[in-house]
Amino acid sequence: MSEGDKALKVALLGCGSVGSQVVRLLTEQAGDLAARVGARVELVGVAVRRLEAQREVEVPADLLTTDAAGLVRGDFAGPVDLVIEVIGGIEPARSLILAALESGASVVTANKALLAEDGSTLFEAAEKAGRDLYYEAAVAGAIPILRPLRESLAGDTVTRVLGIVNGTTNFILDQMDTTGAGFADALEEAQELGYAEADPTADVEGFDAAAKAAILASLAFHTRVTAADVHREGISEVTAADVQSAREMGAVVKLLAICDLRDGAVSARVHPAMIPRAHPLASVRGAFNAVFVESEAAGELMFYGPGAGGAPTASAVLGDLVTVARNRLAETRGAGESSYADRAVLPMGETLTRYHVSIDVDDRPGVLAAVATAFAEQGVSIQTVRQEGREDDAHLVVVSHRATDSALAATVAHLRTMEIVRDVTSVMRVEGGDE
Amino acid sequence: MSEGDKALKVALLGCGSVGSQVVRLLTEQAGDLAARVGARVELVGVAVRRLEAQREVEVPADLLTTDAAGLVRGDFAGPVDLVIEVIGGIEPARSLILAALESGASVVTANKALLAEDGSTLFEAAEKAGRDLYYEAAVAGAIPILRPLRESLAGDTVTRVLGIVNGTTNFILDQMDTTGAGFADALEEAQELGYAEADPTADVEGFDAAAKAAILASLAFHTRVTAADVHREGISEVTAADVQSAREMGAVVKLLAICDLRDGAVSARVHPAMIPRAHPLASVRGAFNAVFVESEAAGELMFYGPGAGGAPTASAVLGDLVTVARNRLAETRGAGESSYADRAVLPMGETLTRYHVSIDVDDRPGVLAAVATAFAEQGVSIQTVRQEGREDDAHLVVVSHRATDSALAATVAHLRTMEIVRDVTSVMRVEGGDE
Repeated sequence: MSEGDKALKVALLGCGSVGSQVVRLLTEQAGDLAARVGARVELVGVAVRRLEAQREVEVPADLLTTDAAGLVRGDFAGPVDLVIEVIGGIEPARSLILAALESGASVVTANKALLAEDGSTLFEAAEKAGRDLYYEAAVAGAIPILRPLRESLAGDTVTRVLGIVNGTTNFILDQMDTTGAGFADALEEAQELGYAEADPTADVEGFDAAAKAAILASLAFHTRVTAADVHREGISEVTAADVQSAREMGAVVKLLAICDLRDGAVSARVHPAMIPRAHPLASVRGAFNAVFVESEAAGELMFYGPGAGGAPTASAVLGDLVTVARNRLAETRGAGESSYADRAVLPMGETLTRYHVSIDVDDRPGVLAAVATAFAEQGVSIQTVRQEGREDDAHLVVVSHRATDSALAATVAHLRTMEIVRDVTSVMRVEGGDE
Repeated sequence: MSEGDKALKVALLGCGSVGSQVVRLLTEQAGDLAARVGARVELVGVAVRRLEAQREVEVPADLLTTDAAGLVRGDFAGPVDLVIEVIGGIEPARSLILAALESGASVVTANKALLAEDGSTLFEAAEKAGRDLYYEAAVAGAIPILRPLRESLAGDTVTRVLGIVNGTTNFILDQMDTTGAGFADALEEAQELGYAEADPTADVEGFDAAAKAAILASLAFHTRVTAADVHREGISEVTAADVQSAREMGAVVKLLAICDLRDGAVSARVHPAMIPRAHPLASVRGAFNAVFVESEAAGELMFYGPGAGGAPTASAVLGDLVTVARNRLAETRGAGESSYADRAVLPMGETLTRYHVSIDVDDRPGVLAAVATAFAEQGVSIQTVRQEGREDDAHLVVVSHRATDSALAATVAHLRTMEIVRDVTSVMRVEGGDE
């Protein structure tokens, strides 16, 4: 099965929950991996911060080192063919990946933060070195997204990507939808169950999702989008009333990463939005992730699975490892990056959205006309208005047609200044519908 | 963008609804394709049955020929680099693909029937010729399945694949579930709407799904499974009462393609089954397809999208074309087949299933005990029994735990012979649950 003594030398950088599962799979699947690659895959070293740390999987002591740079340089077992980076964060991950590529190794990384902040530097280095840089595990964990977007849809034009790419926030919103709980209670439960960190900021404020949105937009539209290009709003302001309001219109609130292609320009944004319950993304429950792709010829596709976790992420890393190892043996490269399109990034104000606006108003004649006029003055067309009278005041729920985000924001700002408007109690975007 | 005058010559075999969309995409996407491949992709000929036929897309007359063999041989524009086969059926498709590979061309095919009947011959020919044979469009239309199973999960072990891989039957069953209609009425509606053929046999009797099950099992388990290995039951016997019964237990009836790996052996089967409404496959509506994959490390993944249609299928064909074209330029091959596992195929009787059995019985003491004994005698454990008394008879609904299909079949056969059993009114397998 293996071709003589040929073996590919693999260095693993990082041995946390993902890294230790990578070690486990490399060991347990050694036979299958050799068959699929066409050569033995040999783990020659594991760079860790502390030699003595507690690990999910036992790693032979002679493989462990705290000298990641030395391991990449080949000080330990000679030149390394493949480097797996699962340290995360910007540095030292970036320097190590660049050193690996320069020394002629192919690289597999799960590092979404680094790719979203400075992917260009990495991809250029890979291009220059003529080596592969694969990163399936960086977007939506184990869900295969990289090859579908980069290869399967290479003859098609992707126009939109809608993703539920953060399991923590999906768990919280799902709890709020199922139990009627408020954000704080749902977050607490997520923390108790291990779905949310003690400091949940990166998840609930959308930073994690924004990094993934940047990577998804880059992949889908063959251009460069960084995390700084992504408009970002988290879910900490989402109330039980918003979730209830969504329910009343047959919708559910999700934190979406939305990447659009319009007139040759792209936009990428992360914010909570209402989507119809009949939309495939609405059925994504708990901590699961999904990426919904719209393309001109293929139509609507969805990819669903676990977005995080040691073993699922390690599965994605190993899939990449097999591909780059095969390419290495064949002395070729994979489809690689295709950032030829170099598209403009639209500011949030120019993106097209729909709004769901809840307004407390005085209950007197002419109120509805005045509110409708406020929308019309900004050129925003109203799809539905629902009025609920309550003693001496009334409550209006307005759902707009698609308009620019800036026109909608201006409308809401104007509403807040109107005498008859007591309060704009909630504003939320609506996605996944027709108009 | 294109590398000088370098162009890859493409021959298209077949120009029906998929072929004409391939022509359209090759033309409209020419610039993007050249950027993604690294060379111009030039359509040099289109083999058709009749030159004068009506086509969805206009094809330049000088590209059309009725001499498919001559086109593949290079009689028209010299040697061909890439051959796309969208004729379908066994012959002449097989001979043309073999001739293409022998002459040094790489091949992209959408031909599920041929792959399921005689994939080995094609894969061996591709191996011998050192050329690519890609077939994403042959399974679940536009849904990317090939690369996820063959590459993304190459470092993992797939244990089970559950697929809704036939849009016609899913449409019919969805109608029955939504409207309460019987099979005949739902079929008629599907025919009126163009979702079912005038002769619906290939779809409703599960032949189409069985071919796809064979391909999925081969891909997922790195072995060879042919259509003849697949146990096949269609949906023509599914009644409105079955669908109602499923609803009562919180389930929905779907035609499933099920591929299992157990103790190193595989099984593949197609039959209607009840699955819980909370299962991701239950939310696959209308004519959509989905493939649900269970693997050891990644856990549960699902791939969803349109399973048929000219443009979606053409999108899958073009994605393959870009990959094989890139490989052609790099003088390498893709991951290709990996049928190294050579696994035994379990007969249907040995596969593990659960049964939902509806029984009309005499309403007298001891009936439940007698029925329970019939299950126990075959070693089949009962999960739930629901009894509904009706005048002088009673109705029992039994759901079993997992047991071999032969033990369950023997139980049902025995029930039918029992004096107290008036009729076994329905037997259906249950999938997607825990036990």
